[in-house]
Amino acid sequence: MKIAVDAMGGDFAPDEIVLGAIRAAKKYDLEIVLVGNEAKIREIMDRDVSTKKLNITVHHASEVIGMGEHPADAVRTKKDSSVVVATRLVKEGVCDAVLSAGSTGAAVTAAQLILKRIPGIGRPTIATPIPSPAGATLLLDSGANVDSKPEHLLQSALMGSIYAHAVWGEERPRVGLLNIGEEETKGNEQAKETYALLKSCGGLVNFVGNAEGRDLTRGAFDVVVCDGFVGNIVLKFAEGLAVTILNLIKEAVADGGIMAKLGAFLLMPTLKKLGRRLDVKEYGGAPLLGVNGCCIISHGSSDAKSIESAIGVANNYVKGNVLDKIREALAEDRKQANCL
Amino acid sequence: MKIAVDAMGGDFAPDEIVLGAIRAAKKYDLEIVLVGNEAKIREIMDRDVSTKKLNITVHHASEVIGMGEHPADAVRTKKDSSVVVATRLVKEGVCDAVLSAGSTGAAVTAAQLILKRIPGIGRPTIATPIPSPAGATLLLDSGANVDSKPEHLLQSALMGSIYAHAVWGEERPRVGLLNIGEEETKGNEQAKETYALLKSCGGLVNFVGNAEGRDLTRGAFDVVVCDGFVGNIVLKFAEGLAVTILNLIKEAVADGGIMAKLGAFLLMPTLKKLGRRLDVKEYGGAPLLGVNGCCIISHGSSDAKSIESAIGVANNYVKGNVLDKIREALAEDRKQANCL
Repeated sequence: MKIAVDAMGGDFAPDEIVLGAIRAAKKYDLEIVLVGNEAKIREIMDRDVSTKKLNITVHHASEVIGMGEHPADAVRTKKDSSVVVATRLVKEGVCDAVLSAGSTGAAVTAAQLILKRIPGIGRPTIATPIPSPAGATLLLDSGANVDSKPEHLLQSALMGSIYAHAVWGEERPRVGLLNIGEEETKGNEQAKETYALLKSCGGLVNFVGNAEGRDLTRGAFDVVVCDGFVGNIVLKFAEGLAVTILNLIKEAVADGGIMAKLGAFLLMPTLKKLGRRLDVKEYGGAPLLGVNGCCIISHGSSDAKSIESAIGVANNYVKGNVLDKIREALAEDRKQANCL
Repeated sequence: MKIAVDAMGGDFAPDEIVLGAIRAAKKYDLEIVLVGNEAKIREIMDRDVSTKKLNITVHHASEVIGMGEHPADAVRTKKDSSVVVATRLVKEGVCDAVLSAGSTGAAVTAAQLILKRIPGIGRPTIATPIPSPAGATLLLDSGANVDSKPEHLLQSALMGSIYAHAVWGEERPRVGLLNIGEEETKGNEQAKETYALLKSCGGLVNFVGNAEGRDLTRGAFDVVVCDGFVGNIVLKFAEGLAVTILNLIKEAVADGGIMAKLGAFLLMPTLKKLGRRLDVKEYGGAPLLGVNGCCIISHGSSDAKSIESAIGVANNYVKGNVLDKIREALAEDRKQANCL
């Protein structure tokens, strides 16, 4: 297995990306192709002599797409940018997956333009795992599209179910529709139409009803679908809230006297373990489902640990044959039902 | 000042509502009118002889609107329900504010049908404070409407600004539009149109740009506007996340050995103080802005403490002349601008 990693994308690129690739190459049985400025990448690799023995190669790309650039324009004009070149390696069959922590818009656009959508899929969708007490809930779409139509949410539900089955081993993933109440009549027009569609296509996915905001972290659903506008806001809110709570705890301990400081010291190992459970970095990457290839989107703030985890996500995706399973399901279902 | 409290609405009604009213009557210089089943309310009040001296009266209402009932149907048919009677007391000028922890839909519908919308307001909106390190950010709409139009979000921005100024003392409240990126071009059609409208009506509100999900808890905005569909999902997600994190900490401590338990014990007073800062119960109630009267919506799970706080919110609303200020602003602005 070969994974193309965009070494130039992300707030801490190329250093943390290269270091993450080194960690992953030691952990997983796969080859990593680092795509980007060869001199810079080699300089980082050369700091550690043990990397010579690892299964890592470098593929030069002369350009970089910045976070502020218009995704579609940048992907079209910067043909030799790291994310475009890495995506092309998947298209050409050289690599099995592409991973980028750079501009999400650019990675999604590159995947759409180069890998193309799977026949039957109107909109590719980002599937982000949200930690819950029992494991995780897969939220789609977490930001690839805004103004999705009900049929796109049904396609997300189908792809998310296939992923949760193939990668997490969920027998019959429970699918929910993110909404403002449990009842069928709740929500905006999009939600009501989507509810009706998911219900009428019950054979395709195991639709169990509306999921409210509070259900996202309760573990009652394996897959929750929503518009990318809502999904993106919810995820970024979670990120902000986690940081705020952490800072408030630190402040409270600092102001809390010697007993609070001793308590914090004793409790630290336990809280750190818990922090890892909740840390988005542990999940590292979210697959973009619906394109003809494995494309993993990592957070812009990814460090080496996140990149290592994200390469693990790519590994599981490819090993689980997610892409073939989605293609097969769409081919079958279009024959059998009028839902898709 | 007189506050009508729906004594029958909420998961723990009437007990916790009556107990909350007793706490508030001791704390604030105002009269409370408890609306609902008189015998039940008196039975709870009679448990504590000191309530006889408090400024609390009971107004009988024979019916109750349940959480599962269709709000508009229930409000129209149950003329003698506690929430309808309490709202009517405001309409008739007997009370200055109404408060309910019952069905949000019923309270909003009763306010719309009985108090009517303020001229110039298309949709009343629920304004919920979200705690941030520096204070709080007011999120509107947190669930009164779905499918809001850009002009409704502008009206929310104006009303939220007036509230933040009158009640929180913010000189020039910073207004943000909840969106998926900072740039003007980001978001769905509704967000892009709203951005343009807020920008063109800069004299009305101090619009400082898009707010991402993570900005909601950072304190960079005083007022953030969004569709009620998105706002409701975000708020319920926060609720779920807070409960999940708390449960995970408890589990981690329980599994964490003697040192973790001792640490938790020593840290407890500090964490409890922090918990109060983050607790929705401390805020108690969210005003419904845009109707001709003060209407405070409390959470269904409100306990006595929440109700006490919510009565404090009503107190501040009335003392701050929020209603008159909104009416004046709308009257002026309609003369001056074509924005509203």
